[in-house]
Amino acid sequence: MKLNEGVEWAIHACSLLASLPPGKALPARKLAEYFALPEAYLAKILQQLSAAGLVSARKGPGGGYVLARPSGEISLREIVEAVEGTSPCFRCTEIRRRGPAAVADDLFVRPCVIARTMWRAEEAWRAELAKVSLREIQMKGLAEMPAPQVEKAAQWFRAALG
Amino acid sequence: MKLNEGVEWAIHACSLLASLPPGKALPARKLAEYFALPEAYLAKILQQLSAAGLVSARKGPGGGYVLARPSGEISLREIVEAVEGTSPCFRCTEIRRRGPAAVADDLFVRPCVIARTMWRAEEAWRAELAKVSLREIQMKGLAEMPAPQVEKAAQWFRAALG
Repeated sequence: MKLNEGVEWAIHACSLLASLPPGKALPARKLAEYFALPEAYLAKILQQLSAAGLVSARKGPGGGYVLARPSGEISLREIVEAVEGTSPCFRCTEIRRRGPAAVADDLFVRPCVIARTMWRAEEAWRAELAKVSLREIQMKGLAEMPAPQVEKAAQWFRAALG
Repeated sequence: MKLNEGVEWAIHACSLLASLPPGKALPARKLAEYFALPEAYLAKILQQLSAAGLVSARKGPGGGYVLARPSGEISLREIVEAVEGTSPCFRCTEIRRRGPAAVADDLFVRPCVIARTMWRAEEAWRAELAKVSLREIQMKGLAEMPAPQVEKAAQWFRAALG
């Protein structure tokens, strides 16, 4: 089981957008530059975040992406699900209904206990992600950033935002 | 994010082995027959379960697979990890170290807060799976099996075990 690498990119991109001064935006090209990521693929991730209502694009000069809501009101779960979707990781193919002991479909009144248990465990994962806000990630990330990086990032931000 | 379909097969196969009378075993061919699964692929899953110490193969006449431990001492987490492995679902590629704000690697003393948070959430998923024993799955599965299926399964078992 492997999460799409776009999840890492999405969280980092949102965390960077959470650090923007009010009224400022960052185009996909600049976000890609900051993390040295391929722009076309990051643009796809930003579209997914936009479709999920987490970021929005401002047109015109000084335009680009901004968070669509305050970072304290965006959860990690929302960001992960914007990229990965909300389909269950465990797909039940109902093998209990097959083979020599197969019986009529309508005799099975509940989903299989195996599927129910697997889905409950996934829900624990999603619930854990829901507890964490983007603001928390952004603040901890900033606090743990090496001092020389804070300086270089600030310099880059000044140039990028004009 | 998607779990390998082998996970469903592995849990069902273990659950069936948990129902074997003492001293009896089921060859891969019979397990595949019961669930109408491709034998070659199921055999691969059984080898993974065997490598993880969850099932063992008995040679000779009346041989086949048995659980390697009592079903009450096997957790769903062990079965899932036998097939999926224990690598984190979230892979951190350290994009925070790249681009115009890159600084010397040794300035980063802890894993990124994003990776730590993602890994903690995965641990909640694994912990939930660890709480459930194979015995619990097997007993609930049996209790919820439609009566006509119980009968057909018992008939098949009698013929399969000789």
